[in-house]
Amino acid sequence: MCRLLGYLGQPVLLDRLISQSDHSLVAQSYQPQEMTAGLLNADGFGVGWYDSARGTEPFSYRNTLPIWNDANLQSLSRYIRSNCVLANVRSASAGLATDLSNCQPFQYASMMGIHNGLIQDFRKTLYRPIRERLSDLAYQFIQGLTDSEHLFAMTIDELETSANLTEALHRTLKVLTELAEEQQVAFSANLILSDGYQLVASRYAQRTSTPTLYYLQNDSAVERSTFIASEPTFAGDWQALPERCLLTVDHDSKLDITPI
Amino acid sequence: MCRLLGYLGQPVLLDRLISQSDHSLVAQSYQPQEMTAGLLNADGFGVGWYDSARGTEPFSYRNTLPIWNDANLQSLSRYIRSNCVLANVRSASAGLATDLSNCQPFQYASMMGIHNGLIQDFRKTLYRPIRERLSDLAYQFIQGLTDSEHLFAMTIDELETSANLTEALHRTLKVLTELAEEQQVAFSANLILSDGYQLVASRYAQRTSTPTLYYLQNDSAVERSTFIASEPTFAGDWQALPERCLLTVDHDSKLDITPI
Amino acid sequence: MCRLLGYLGQPVLLDRLISQSDHSLVAQSYQPQEMTAGLLNADGFGVGWYDSARGTEPFSYRNTLPIWNDANLQSLSRYIRSNCVLANVRSASAGLATDLSNCQPFQYASMMGIHNGLIQDFRKTLYRPIRERLSDLAYQFIQGLTDSEHLFAMTIDELETSANLTEALHRTLKVLTELAEEQQVAFSANLILSDGYQLVASRYAQRTSTPTLYYLQNDSAVERSTFIASEPTFAGDWQALPERCLLTVDHDSKLDITPI
Amino acid sequence: MCRLLGYLGQPVLLDRLISQSDHSLVAQSYQPQEMTAGLLNADGFGVGWYDSARGTEPFSYRNTLPIWNDANLQSLSRYIRSNCVLANVRSASAGLATDLSNCQPFQYASMMGIHNGLIQDFRKTLYRPIRERLSDLAYQFIQGLTDSEHLFAMTIDELETSANLTEALHRTLKVLTELAEEQQVAFSANLILSDGYQLVASRYAQRTSTPTLYYLQNDSAVERSTFIASEPTFAGDWQALPERCLLTVDHDSKLDITPI
Repeated sequence: MCRLLGYLGQPVLLDRLISQSDHSLVAQSYQPQEMTAGLLNADGFGVGWYDSARGTEPFSYRNTLPIWNDANLQSLSRYIRSNCVLANVRSASAGLATDLSNCQPFQYASMMGIHNGLIQDFRKTLYRPIRERLSDLAYQFIQGLTDSEHLFAMTIDELETSANLTEALHRTLKVLTELAEEQQVAFSANLILSDGYQLVASRYAQRTSTPTLYYLQNDSAVERSTFIASEPTFAGDWQALPERCLLTVDHDSKLDITPI
Repeated sequence: MCRLLGYLGQPVLLDRLISQSDHSLVAQSYQPQEMTAGLLNADGFGVGWYDSARGTEPFSYRNTLPIWNDANLQSLSRYIRSNCVLANVRSASAGLATDLSNCQPFQYASMMGIHNGLIQDFRKTLYRPIRERLSDLAYQFIQGLTDSEHLFAMTIDELETSANLTEALHRTLKVLTELAEEQQVAFSANLILSDGYQLVASRYAQRTSTPTLYYLQNDSAVERSTFIASEPTFAGDWQALPERCLLTVDHDSKLDITPI
Repeated sequence: MCRLLGYLGQPVLLDRLISQSDHSLVAQSYQPQEMTAGLLNADGFGVGWYDSARGTEPFSYRNTLPIWNDANLQSLSRYIRSNCVLANVRSASAGLATDLSNCQPFQYASMMGIHNGLIQDFRKTLYRPIRERLSDLAYQFIQGLTDSEHLFAMTIDELETSANLTEALHRTLKVLTELAEEQQVAFSANLILSDGYQLVASRYAQRTSTPTLYYLQNDSAVERSTFIASEPTFAGDWQALPERCLLTVDHDSKLDITPI
Repeated sequence: MCRLLGYLGQPVLLDRLISQSDHSLVAQSYQPQEMTAGLLNADGFGVGWYDSARGTEPFSYRNTLPIWNDANLQSLSRYIRSNCVLANVRSASAGLATDLSNCQPFQYASMMGIHNGLIQDFRKTLYRPIRERLSDLAYQFIQGLTDSEHLFAMTIDELETSANLTEALHRTLKVLTELAEEQQVAFSANLILSDGYQLVASRYAQRTSTPTLYYLQNDSAVERSTFIASEPTFAGDWQALPERCLLTVDHDSKLDITPI
């Protein structure tokens, strides 16, 4: 389990997104309220962002410390300003290293992604089958051990033959469901992807409870903007994304929800 | 606030002391039950131990990660065996760095020490007055910024003119009380000191609540041994050390409690 | 010993300043050519920068790893763009921790500073005398153990009663010289300070060799800009700052050199 | 490139093996003399050891910092005493993370191993072919990205059907040679393996220069003991292991050299 945050809208300082709210991502790190597994999200963190003035390749910053102990974050989050951000505080699966390579977001060309969830007994179940399906490019992309990064690698491949990010995520979840069914393996797969112009998110699980995912649009706090988060980060009219659904939101705040 | 553990008795593996019990120090790191301030003890940790076969200089191991994320600890704690151990999981005061120098235990010659508590607004109150009283030796000893290390440095000086560790700790607390009264500053000072032959502990505070401290002797789990801990680490006949008291226990399990 | 870099001029990406040149700061980390003590500068690093569009408080990023092993730096240095930068790769004095608090630059309000050099036997010589002269504000400012940070703290105090940064640095070096003479202690003090509008640098030592310091102005590579560096970072018409001199350069590239 | 050290003989303190000699592993970290690629070995390190009194499972300690900056190592290496040790200071291949999972030694059941060398363009050449040959057990064993860990995983599989460690290493190198020939890929493979009773080492390369490897037996410094090292760690009658050879030494100091 992790806690996710996605933002698309007016440019804001990172500080405002991850620290400056009642139940900020930092607070969700040491005191989350809706975890379905795990107690804390203190096994590293990461944030990725786009700079619309400088093309489509995103930037990222990750650390293995708990987010509240990163001495650089205060300065960086006062400096970095973005209209499109993904952030993650990590709760590692038992036995997995706190290596930087296991921290999110993952990034491939202009795409970034974060994941909250898990694949049951991943290393003994779908680890090898997922890898063997990957193109060489996606295979070589993987740096760490997490189920999360393997889902992202699957998306890299699906994107090659998909019309857009939403379709790529949808197809990734279909393939994952088939692989999981073969071995009767439970999984949960709340993901948020971005290419800098849109956010695409899923709330989805099989054979286990589905983690929460909320969204908020055009709140008075930040007009013409969309938030997606595992837990609401401040008081507002947050909506629960229905289970087994995909959410797509683009730069004009147009929002679509489709079943998976 | 931190959580403390002291052990004196039959040689045991570190693993058994800090990991292998229902409410081990590792569990107290992510789920403490009797904290008077703070939620977690995830801002680093440390363990110190003596090897009675190899003289009086202690050994120590510290890390800035949460204790549950130290990938080396499993191997080290299966290897290290000792009859006299101090261990600490840290909850940093707001704004203090997670630098290794701020992790406990502190060590000077054959003495080690750990502290749970705090001095109110330390840097603006007693930081400079305490330092200015120190001998050059104790002054130069200090590596970090914590109130804890400054209390330990005071003890280094008091030990010079004290008959034993107990008297040195007693006198340190007397001086601290006087300095704090001058500025009407609150503090709490649960400490455990050792020289490899005995444990000396205090449960003490002024103008604020006194953190808990328990001890257990000659439990069937580990005969002829004494545990001292902020919270009982396993079910047993733990006794609360009375407030404003010093506890001294020596290698023959002889235990004295005296008021401060 | 460390390696220093200061930059003032047209806004450039950090990447260009610290990585993209033949003898960049990264290269000076693993293969310096003009060190008077030490072999490498691999004991941490740091970079500080101003954003002229956003007021005078600077930003900074520091890490205890060798600069070439920081996995975040590539992304950060492609994102951060500044017209005024200080950077340092550290060669720790023997026995000093690689704690983040010991990494440079140091920052106080709108002032930043970096230092290359050392005070002989610092902890046993000038450590306590320097501290005892400090105002409470400068005293409480100090987070680490380095002689470098103590020189910076002295400058904080001198700035209170100085007309400008140049005078503050000059007076700091005067006081340092007096303190050092009393104890016949050798020191070297190459510093670069900034307030976002100007760079002030010293090349100075007593009773020991003076480390190198170079400057370069209006090179075709980066017009209307000034570089100051322990070693030239690329081929160009670099000038050695004479020993025992102060250099001041402002935003219009006006450059003054005065003897200390 | 890395620097390797293997030791089998009388129990000694780690300190003596890795720090206390003129050209110790620590010195080889910052000033190696016989590297065929790279300048330093400052990208992490690790040490593994056996305790003959406590069964065959080895212990290990690894860190991503340069070995000279590990603040815990002094204490640990004064405490840990062993008759069988493997140690490694790492020079990472370009682009590979300094994650702990990429540090050596690797450990499987009672076997440990360290590797100096590299497989040309590993991720694009033999990475996937090697993985696909592995048993599920060896496949799931791998935690990091290094060619070194993949060679060790191959050895895990070969050991299943080999008479001893020497044969397992020999067969691993045969398979590696075949895989490399198919793609005309250069590699170097100096390895040291142990099971606590013996050391087995290879000095071997194809299509590239063969890194150095030396051994020393029954030196007056440490009688009835064998050292194997990339570079001699102290003055003595070190012998160069011939290229394309395997060396096996057992607890009675019996030493065999066989061609590969």
